[in-house]
Amino acid sequence: MLTVAVSVAAGVAAITSAFPALYDYRVAMGVLFIAGIATGNLRGLRESSNLFALPTYLFVFSFAGMLAYGLVRWAAGWEAAPPAEIAVPMSQDLTIFVVLRAFSSGCAALTGVEAVSDGVPAFKPPEARNARTVLAWLGIILVALFIGITFLAHHYHVTPRAEETVVSQLARLIFGGGLLYYEIQVVTMLILVFAANTAFADFPRLAYFLARDGFIPRQFGTRGDRLVFSNGILILGGLAALLILLFGGATHALIPLYAVGVFVSFTLSQASMVRRWLTRRESGWQWRWVMNGLGAATTGLVMLVIAGTKFRHGAWMVVLLIPLLVVGFLMIRRHYADVARQLSLDNYGGPPPIDHSVLVLVGDLHRGVAAALRYAQTLSASVKAVYVELDPERTRKLEEKWGKFGLGIPLVVLTSPYRSLLTPFLDYVNHLLALGENHVVTIVIPEFVPARWWQHLLHNQTALLIKGALLFRKGVVVVDVPFHLR
Amino acid sequence: MLTVAVSVAAGVAAITSAFPALYDYRVAMGVLFIAGIATGNLRGLRESSNLFALPTYLFVFSFAGMLAYGLVRWAAGWEAAPPAEIAVPMSQDLTIFVVLRAFSSGCAALTGVEAVSDGVPAFKPPEARNARTVLAWLGIILVALFIGITFLAHHYHVTPRAEETVVSQLARLIFGGGLLYYEIQVVTMLILVFAANTAFADFPRLAYFLARDGFIPRQFGTRGDRLVFSNGILILGGLAALLILLFGGATHALIPLYAVGVFVSFTLSQASMVRRWLTRRESGWQWRWVMNGLGAATTGLVMLVIAGTKFRHGAWMVVLLIPLLVVGFLMIRRHYADVARQLSLDNYGGPPPIDHSVLVLVGDLHRGVAAALRYAQTLSASVKAVYVELDPERTRKLEEKWGKFGLGIPLVVLTSPYRSLLTPFLDYVNHLLALGENHVVTIVIPEFVPARWWQHLLHNQTALLIKGALLFRKGVVVVDVPFHLR
Repeated sequence: MLTVAVSVAAGVAAITSAFPALYDYRVAMGVLFIAGIATGNLRGLRESSNLFALPTYLFVFSFAGMLAYGLVRWAAGWEAAPPAEIAVPMSQDLTIFVVLRAFSSGCAALTGVEAVSDGVPAFKPPEARNARTVLAWLGIILVALFIGITFLAHHYHVTPRAEETVVSQLARLIFGGGLLYYEIQVVTMLILVFAANTAFADFPRLAYFLARDGFIPRQFGTRGDRLVFSNGILILGGLAALLILLFGGATHALIPLYAVGVFVSFTLSQASMVRRWLTRRESGWQWRWVMNGLGAATTGLVMLVIAGTKFRHGAWMVVLLIPLLVVGFLMIRRHYADVARQLSLDNYGGPPPIDHSVLVLVGDLHRGVAAALRYAQTLSASVKAVYVELDPERTRKLEEKWGKFGLGIPLVVLTSPYRSLLTPFLDYVNHLLALGENHVVTIVIPEFVPARWWQHLLHNQTALLIKGALLFRKGVVVVDVPFHLR
Repeated sequence: MLTVAVSVAAGVAAITSAFPALYDYRVAMGVLFIAGIATGNLRGLRESSNLFALPTYLFVFSFAGMLAYGLVRWAAGWEAAPPAEIAVPMSQDLTIFVVLRAFSSGCAALTGVEAVSDGVPAFKPPEARNARTVLAWLGIILVALFIGITFLAHHYHVTPRAEETVVSQLARLIFGGGLLYYEIQVVTMLILVFAANTAFADFPRLAYFLARDGFIPRQFGTRGDRLVFSNGILILGGLAALLILLFGGATHALIPLYAVGVFVSFTLSQASMVRRWLTRRESGWQWRWVMNGLGAATTGLVMLVIAGTKFRHGAWMVVLLIPLLVVGFLMIRRHYADVARQLSLDNYGGPPPIDHSVLVLVGDLHRGVAAALRYAQTLSASVKAVYVELDPERTRKLEEKWGKFGLGIPLVVLTSPYRSLLTPFLDYVNHLLALGENHVVTIVIPEFVPARWWQHLLHNQTALLIKGALLFRKGVVVVDVPFHLR
């Protein structure tokens, strides 16, 4: 979720840097981007599509070009560096803490490289070697871009501002605005939106595994019409959009949460590898567990430094949320195990026989009620109709009609001293339920179905009231019998 | 609704005039007042209660005292009048239009007096004479207060302001702040809140008559637990609160709507009396119809002047709304008449015999499903279970269990080439429905009922999906059979 929120927020920032008039709409733009990506994924858009190759190459070459041009300008001394706009503290004691912080921030800037390791099976054979080549290239490109941008940002005295990204300021200074500047911004936006898309490919699959193992609701394990895990996509999109809303679409506010989350997962995966080597003792385990142990220690240290320094800037949420999620997962798994036990057919003697009463609740007698009576007769030979008396005069009229059109079904009249419809009826149902342990009461309610939607408002929603009062009542089944009006 | 909204807005204005810090919370205060009054009415608070007598006397005597003291100060020349704060145009051509406007505004200020005529039967005998005495006194008090306030407001150069009412400015100038000033404000607020309460006594009763005659939904005709017309109270409170929200709690913005509404009703009631005299020709009809005709003409003129001059200030809403309401009333009455015809037992031969199929939709076989199968067996001897196959391996497993625990009920397996659960099942139901005109298909759906609310989220809501797809489908009855988990 944080990957989606951070990437989209940064993508929107690239656009609002180029078009400041859009700055006020950054939250709406972020939500729209997420809705667009989610819709694409619901309709079956795949990450492996060639659609994604072009912007990736464009991004690498555009940035390389920008940095090269910037360095040439610097080397040739074409322009004087503009004066520093803000006085920044020039020196700081190089304590161990400052080193740790710098190291952590640097690490956070380089996340995403590990994505290659998740995709090894998708490479052409020999998979491992090809993946290693890609990883090496990725490292070189990333480090080159990182150092290049840092160097030029220092040279041009560019400092982060809320309204304009560092990249935008740099591109503006190097190209002096114009078409090339806008190209850099659009390509940045595209690559970041595609980064968000990665999470839409991975989260629903992760959710599927968790659902299969009973740690989260099973609905995450079912595929939608286009064979995608629609529930995972919807939840991911919804929560990422919520994060954008809560943090006002500000990238810098989301980064602490993101960084803690990322390094928790890195630490956990490295630690699990250590455990694996120590348990299974496969070939080379002696030096492999040391390597992964070193990895766990490094990423764990980064996590602690970020969680500590950024605790008050939102990292506390992640620190709080992760234990809560784990507790939730365990509760859900216990519930599923419990249900499975209760439903199991082991040592099952079959369902007990049912002692069945069928009641038709009537408020009048007309064609709709008559149809419901006929239906109830097909359910049981001993149907009874129940009427709650609010006005004896109406009872007399009803009984008159009943003689002619009551289909021979006995009519039980319940008196209601306090003009309540529900209480006497519920008392009567309780009385029937008390007759035996395996007693089931089926309550048939005649219901109008008007021809047009607004006409629903014009009829008493007695059926709804009764259903509400008896919902989830043990031994009670409520059946609406619709009567369709023209 | 407008009476409630205007009275409450004015009552809140009395408070915020005295405590300007509350001015920003005027909308919330208005909504809270309305919620309070509505709650009181829902719990059976009566207008006739002695509770209402005290503040009424307090109001009359406080205002009379304030005006008397103000007049004495003026007569004794105790203080120089403060200079006019705002330059107001001093002269205006006295055209017929200006006269009409002044007349209309004056009339609007005196509305409410007619309430006595609605309550004649509540007077002690001789009712008519007592009511006439009260009406005369009411007229005298009202005119005296109106003239007194107008005179003093002119003398003190008080002009209406959004943040402080005229009465508050006047009381502040006369009493120079202090306890007496606050007493005036509190009493004003009380009397206005009680004015709003009048509408809560009358609107639900009016709604009852309209509902009885079939012009508005019947639900307005049913009494709640405490014998009050709860639906009328809730709708009145809800819509009045909405008006307060829409108009930002500003009395002056609501007045045009209120005035047009009031004078439309006056005109209509006077015109109906004219029609009554001309049709029935009761004693004295000759001069009575002239009197009521004059009344209709006068109030009609006021209505036209207000609707004309305040058209752009909101009166257009009332002008638009009233015809729409009338059309709505007529549509609703036609619907009820139409339904009554369709349900009538005249020339009715009784409901046609039903050809009944009972299906149990199963996704697996466990104790919950077995209980539902047993229940379905009590409904019909020829029950069938239906299973939609998404994976042939699972079908094989299900069929194995079915032999042992299927209670001898035949299992229909529907194949689903596109992995959809709904489509094959709906096709099967349609096929059954097509077998005959009087065919009814009852679909039994086994449903879990977890012990705790949050556990509902952990189960596939297939039952809900099926119900949604078959809702209001002719010839289909859906029955949930709950299985209660511990």
